[in-house]
Amino acid sequence: MIMTTNGVFRPEMRRVPTGELLKPNRKTNGVGVQAEDTKICVVMVGLPARGKSLIAQKVVRYLHWLSIPAKTFNVGQYRRTATPNPSAEFFDTSNPEGERLRKAAAEAAVNDMVKWFSEGQGLIAILDATNSTKSRRRWIQDRCQAEGIETLFVESKCDDEDLIMSNIKEVKTTSPDYVGQDPEAAAQDFRNRIRNYEKVYQTIDEDEYDLTYVKLINVGKRVVINQIQDYLQSRVVYYLMNLHIKPRSIWLSRHGESQYNLSGKIGGDADLSERGEAYARALPGLVKQSAGEGRKLTVWTSTLRRTIQTARFLEFEKLEWKALDELDSGVCDGLTYAEIESAYPEDFRQRDEDKYNYRYLGGESYRDVVIRLEPIIMELERSENILIVTHQAILRCIYAYFMNVEQERSPWMEVPLHTLIKLTPKAYSTQEERLKADIPAVSTFREKGSSAKHQEGDAA
Amino acid sequence: MIMTTNGVFRPEMRRVPTGELLKPNRKTNGVGVQAEDTKICVVMVGLPARGKSLIAQKVVRYLHWLSIPAKTFNVGQYRRTATPNPSAEFFDTSNPEGERLRKAAAEAAVNDMVKWFSEGQGLIAILDATNSTKSRRRWIQDRCQAEGIETLFVESKCDDEDLIMSNIKEVKTTSPDYVGQDPEAAAQDFRNRIRNYEKVYQTIDEDEYDLTYVKLINVGKRVVINQIQDYLQSRVVYYLMNLHIKPRSIWLSRHGESQYNLSGKIGGDADLSERGEAYARALPGLVKQSAGEGRKLTVWTSTLRRTIQTARFLEFEKLEWKALDELDSGVCDGLTYAEIESAYPEDFRQRDEDKYNYRYLGGESYRDVVIRLEPIIMELERSENILIVTHQAILRCIYAYFMNVEQERSPWMEVPLHTLIKLTPKAYSTQEERLKADIPAVSTFREKGSSAKHQEGDAA
Repeated sequence: MIMTTNGVFRPEMRRVPTGELLKPNRKTNGVGVQAEDTKICVVMVGLPARGKSLIAQKVVRYLHWLSIPAKTFNVGQYRRTATPNPSAEFFDTSNPEGERLRKAAAEAAVNDMVKWFSEGQGLIAILDATNSTKSRRRWIQDRCQAEGIETLFVESKCDDEDLIMSNIKEVKTTSPDYVGQDPEAAAQDFRNRIRNYEKVYQTIDEDEYDLTYVKLINVGKRVVINQIQDYLQSRVVYYLMNLHIKPRSIWLSRHGESQYNLSGKIGGDADLSERGEAYARALPGLVKQSAGEGRKLTVWTSTLRRTIQTARFLEFEKLEWKALDELDSGVCDGLTYAEIESAYPEDFRQRDEDKYNYRYLGGESYRDVVIRLEPIIMELERSENILIVTHQAILRCIYAYFMNVEQERSPWMEVPLHTLIKLTPKAYSTQEERLKADIPAVSTFREKGSSAKHQEGDAA
Repeated sequence: MIMTTNGVFRPEMRRVPTGELLKPNRKTNGVGVQAEDTKICVVMVGLPARGKSLIAQKVVRYLHWLSIPAKTFNVGQYRRTATPNPSAEFFDTSNPEGERLRKAAAEAAVNDMVKWFSEGQGLIAILDATNSTKSRRRWIQDRCQAEGIETLFVESKCDDEDLIMSNIKEVKTTSPDYVGQDPEAAAQDFRNRIRNYEKVYQTIDEDEYDLTYVKLINVGKRVVINQIQDYLQSRVVYYLMNLHIKPRSIWLSRHGESQYNLSGKIGGDADLSERGEAYARALPGLVKQSAGEGRKLTVWTSTLRRTIQTARFLEFEKLEWKALDELDSGVCDGLTYAEIESAYPEDFRQRDEDKYNYRYLGGESYRDVVIRLEPIIMELERSENILIVTHQAILRCIYAYFMNVEQERSPWMEVPLHTLIKLTPKAYSTQEERLKADIPAVSTFREKGSSAKHQEGDAA
């Protein structure tokens, strides 16, 4: 907090630029130290239908959310430019033309990845392919090493037949390889393709002791980790360890309308308004309607009164998390937007310009909030059915993680009061349903440039 | 922040007790969800001199720091009551009397552990013994299961001869088994003891697929994780994954004396005083004196001006962490202790009564700070030589982790300005050296009950 005893901000207390420093300081991204020249290639390994692309996609989403530049290079997509609809025979290793084309696709993907790194934008690339032989992995390792790129091999092994079948079902209906084909024929062909891979598949083993790798066996039931050295590698591995694929949903709700919402003030620790109280009483019914009778869930709230009051009629186990408290608006806490605009016109303008990065004087930015929410996201990945009652900015950040919303857009998303959001993670996307309680509330959405009283209530 | 627009705290804004709730809410300890009835027994596995006790002791220290009640039950200590100075033959499995006594010691340790859990104080017990056969592990698993205690087997495997020898050296000089004996004879006897264990040692393998376990091979070079389910288990495993045993030191310094220190105000984002500037200029020399010429270190600061300014003449890579910012004193930010005492007399008294748990209105407690420092501690465990320039409360929390300081005492520790602290982790303790710069500064230490201007400057 930067404030004098009487609460008046003095301009000379503003942070000075650090131009005078002998060496420029680097900021951490808050989840750890990154060498500026870190380049990691996450190399997926595994038979088809083992969830490799799903894992790749989740890791990229998680890294993007943490502002870590990451990109997937899918070898199948490169192969498809030459061979759009290959039959299973194409993947038979005794088919030299197939072999040649598949190797060419891998080379094209690796070349593009190296180019992407050399352009200086990337930290983590994901090479999504089967990479199912030791020689292919050695080739990738050597290529990366020559380019100064660290590798992290991620093998997904799975002998759970149900899981494999559901992956096959997913592929036959979504893969561009089978566009316009009969689903049953596609599934059969895909099974044959897997059989061709099985003939040559080599799991990562002791011969490859010098590789940095993680083996996920039956989606994290068993995990083998070898030679992890780098901090970012260890973050990725920890994330992978925490993933599960049990079906579940996550419910998000803002607190009911608060006294501060009514008066247009941000922050604070106000009680619910009368209509907010009505929402608290309606919430158990909404949840029952959305989750079904008898579904067991756990309720997470912040430590602030308005979320605790909102959750208090829910007959589930409840947990309070300080990490779910609203974005700290520092010196602006307790002010209306009109008051902020008049007291700190320059700040008000700056915030509109880059809301994600703008840090309230003595308070937080959306970027800061994401960092303190990281353990919450990790815990959400581990958990099953959770209902979170929290605040506008916090909900936006959690929602952005699950729905893959870009940073520039996430602080401007409309998340109305008195609405229950249900998110259901599916293989390649997250399903969303919104249930609106029939209880009016002020709109707390604030458009860019606006300082109207009733557009936004929380410190968001 | 709980404050009106003119910065005056209104008593009705204080948080209400949650006595009205249908169900009492539980607080998380901030590092995750704990079922109230979680009981985990961490079962160490491995030959002697594989660092088991060291691992056990680090885990307990980490958990205590996070307010997770944990206790080690060392089977050797139980055995010693019957057999204080056994020779290597005692550990020969063909010696039935030795076998009987060792099994009795294991039983006594497990019985005490079960009793400790049943008294309701514990969450995590560590059973420190070799537990080197499958039958012994199965017996522990069955005993725990019958008592509703989850198990997490932690095997330390090591074939690095240097590491084993340095452990043997440690044991022969510190083990109560060899008190008063010739060190060379002790080392020889201990090697024979290990040989007796090696005869029957069974590493955890596929037969034991139903056990939850982690195998640490050569101190984390390779890690195998099996069937981790519980959140706390996964935290412990992640901590274990991040440990290393390379020799290194950690340096801690508060920022140089600030303008706020001079005026006795807490919090804020003031510049350094003249004497604080002098400390910043002296710091590179102090570091060289303490670390030696040419030692490579990384400097971590908070995002506040006084730490950045203090570090600015250090010619090392620097990182700014928001997690290292001073304890947020909420509505009291920018006040002197005398002003706090007069404006919030009740709060002032409460804070003195339980400084660790007292949360400033709209701000943080020491407990909150520990939670936000957890990723910093994890990163410190992974890192080598780090110099941290931070604030009084933050430094106290980091120091408490390394030096195993109890919670009640840690917020009252004296950490003077203009002093460089060097911590060097050793096998069973952390070595400390303090180097005082010859630059005067106000004392910012505040005794319980005092509101004198010059006892404490930061928000601590």
